[in-house]
Amino acid sequence: MKVYTQTISLSSEGNLDTHDITGQVANLIQMSSQSNGTITLFTASSTSGITTIEFEDGCLKDIKQLFEELADPNRHYAHNERWHDGNGHAHVCAALLGPSITIPFTDKHLILGIWQQIMFIDFDNKPRQREIIAQIIGE
Amino acid sequence: MKVYTQTISLSSEGNLDTHDITGQVANLIQMSSQSNGTITLFTASSTSGITTIEFEDGCLKDIKQLFEELADPNRHYAHNERWHDGNGHAHVCAALLGPSITIPFTDKHLILGIWQQIMFIDFDNKPRQREIIAQIIGE
Amino acid sequence: MKVYTQTISLSSEGNLDTHDITGQVANLIQMSSQSNGTITLFTASSTSGITTIEFEDGCLKDIKQLFEELADPNRHYAHNERWHDGNGHAHVCAALLGPSITIPFTDKHLILGIWQQIMFIDFDNKPRQREIIAQIIGE
Repeated sequence: MKVYTQTISLSSEGNLDTHDITGQVANLIQMSSQSNGTITLFTASSTSGITTIEFEDGCLKDIKQLFEELADPNRHYAHNERWHDGNGHAHVCAALLGPSITIPFTDKHLILGIWQQIMFIDFDNKPRQREIIAQIIGE
Repeated sequence: MKVYTQTISLSSEGNLDTHDITGQVANLIQMSSQSNGTITLFTASSTSGITTIEFEDGCLKDIKQLFEELADPNRHYAHNERWHDGNGHAHVCAALLGPSITIPFTDKHLILGIWQQIMFIDFDNKPRQREIIAQIIGE
Repeated sequence: MKVYTQTISLSSEGNLDTHDITGQVANLIQMSSQSNGTITLFTASSTSGITTIEFEDGCLKDIKQLFEELADPNRHYAHNERWHDGNGHAHVCAALLGPSITIPFTDKHLILGIWQQIMFIDFDNKPRQREIIAQIIGE
């Protein structure tokens, strides 16, 4: 059993910009010495999140609409009143979705559904350089 | 430390069908060689999810109502416009809830609250055979 | 590789009471024998949850408002009709947010964003003594 930690870096436009990171995650498993175990993906930020989705244009439009309805960027946020950075909606979306997912792999093969990809979503209101921590624990 | 991976299979009716998988998860821990560690449950699909809940009829009705309000199956979805499979609502609910949870166990005992069960929920709009990956990492 | 399990206890007021447990989590990593690995935080209850957030008054107000809008405590819940304990809203919020998060650490250092803290949130409608399971797996 070993621990293997890497970082996935990406440039995000913000404003619900979405990224399919499935290929990068699968590559990390290939590069590691482990054949079986879990990979934990954690976004080290309070204005972005990680989940899985069928990564096609329709679903991406629909999930963006859901988050805009849950937390309209243009309504009042106590966070904005205090800090004037205008990303109060981003904080609540990120807290609701959560910062991490953990996915099992076996025989170096990431276990996902056929129509299931790993999505990073950036709720913040400006472009950001993002770092996703990918940690493999396995044997 | 070892990794032990199994699959929990179930037949789901879809349309917010819910399943209490606590007993099956506890059995896997008994069957494994590990006494202490985590079990990660991951649904290999983009139209279902896993969480914990007090698994009684009232809470089940309430959580179904919440998801129906968050993503009304009868409104417009860009996914449906493109693919005509009518399950756009299922994709956004699954992405919001997330595909995985990780639960610690000690001395072969799954750590859960007294009124807390592990629930699989199927958001899709038709019956499906489902596979939940259960992976134990521990010693 | 070893497993190290501890409990974080706290007194909660309920009604969306929030607690920043980042310091306690960081301390557990210091106390453990592991330098690299994951810490899984799991709330053994069906009426509370764990996530990350920028733990400042504005964001806390905003996330509480989001949950009150998602599940108004004063509307009808089938759970309340059956059990008369008035916390139907707490159960659906907890199920939606989820009971666990998993965070990587390296060189004894918990990996979090600068403005990202670990938050326990209690959705129940009365004060409770709460136990959060913290389990470290690493080397």
